[in-house]
Amino acid sequence: MNNPHVTAPSNRTRIRRLPELAQYDRAALYSIIDEAYVCHIAFNDGESTHCIPTACWRDGDFLYIHGSNGGRLTKMMLSGRQVSIAITHVDGLVLAKSAFNHSMNYRSCVIYGEFELVEGRENKLAAMDMFMDKIALGRKQEARPGNEKELAATSVLRISLAEAAAKISCKAEPDDKEEDLKLPVWTGILPLCTARAEPIPAKHSSIAAPEYVNQWQNKM
Amino acid sequence: MNNPHVTAPSNRTRIRRLPELAQYDRAALYSIIDEAYVCHIAFNDGESTHCIPTACWRDGDFLYIHGSNGGRLTKMMLSGRQVSIAITHVDGLVLAKSAFNHSMNYRSCVIYGEFELVEGRENKLAAMDMFMDKIALGRKQEARPGNEKELAATSVLRISLAEAAAKISCKAEPDDKEEDLKLPVWTGILPLCTARAEPIPAKHSSIAAPEYVNQWQNKM
Repeated sequence: MNNPHVTAPSNRTRIRRLPELAQYDRAALYSIIDEAYVCHIAFNDGESTHCIPTACWRDGDFLYIHGSNGGRLTKMMLSGRQVSIAITHVDGLVLAKSAFNHSMNYRSCVIYGEFELVEGRENKLAAMDMFMDKIALGRKQEARPGNEKELAATSVLRISLAEAAAKISCKAEPDDKEEDLKLPVWTGILPLCTARAEPIPAKHSSIAAPEYVNQWQNKM
Repeated sequence: MNNPHVTAPSNRTRIRRLPELAQYDRAALYSIIDEAYVCHIAFNDGESTHCIPTACWRDGDFLYIHGSNGGRLTKMMLSGRQVSIAITHVDGLVLAKSAFNHSMNYRSCVIYGEFELVEGRENKLAAMDMFMDKIALGRKQEARPGNEKELAATSVLRISLAEAAAKISCKAEPDDKEEDLKLPVWTGILPLCTARAEPIPAKHSSIAAPEYVNQWQNKM
């Protein structure tokens, strides 16, 4: 584990079920996060365990979220609670000869740790700019920036990606058993992906669409 | 709350943040679950809180999962632990005149409760058939059914949907403030959806594709 791009798994991130699918390198983790608009955060509030979806983005080795100061998730996350965060992309259904050998292609990651508040006006603005870059590169120069009241109402939080692992299954062929291969059953992959449909201008959007809107459907 | 299709929220499923987006009717909940191949399960193992993705399907008022008997998730879920499960579909980015008013269109649900084992050979087979119907309607008649060893190695679990709520944001227009409307900024929706790409036959798939494979890209 001398490779700086690979993180040694912790007791919590060591993948035990199908360990051959584990990925501990940063590039795999980053690409799963960067492709996601939403993560799922698990936490315990002392009474119950909750699983809450929220928007997310990444800068360096941190995952960021934001929320209203008054929101329960924000308050919970600021109380130093340990959390577990998961992101999953389903890439396809893998149809095998036997019912038992069906599976899915997916890319997922799980992150453990605790959130910290992004403090300082400049740090907060820089983090929100990263979020806008993810949504639409170039838009931060066009949209009206947050005013002091809007900024003050929003908390930006981040969590280190130090304790995180990815699990990836990307089969090109199903795992059929030797004795099943001759069965007259179609096998293969039914691929799934996230697609971008044609942008829909708002009624009060009177100006021409900028490049990032025109290129939306070509974005990778 | 005399409508049988609407469930009164519990203390845990009452949506406090943007309560106007809450949906407590069964149809909304069912459609979010039925469109998902994966859910995220939050649970606490006594030491840590975890968030784990797993395949899911629905039959009536229950969400089902399955797993290897020896898997940690299966064992944890069978120990009567309270869980929280979330499913989220991101339908689009909502670009407003101001940075602050940007949002997302999404459909999500959160379920609380505890899993129970689906017992009895017939019940287990019926549940697995429902899963196969979700993956590819008609395939359960073609694929080799699970043999006794395969069936014995798999646990099927279900959780009641009695304590569940959906939260849906499907804006056709961004929430721009009156004073921002005249700003020369493009506003509108950048839609996202799950798409089905062309099926990829396995190398050893020698027979013609069945109807559910040919119709994969037309499936709603």
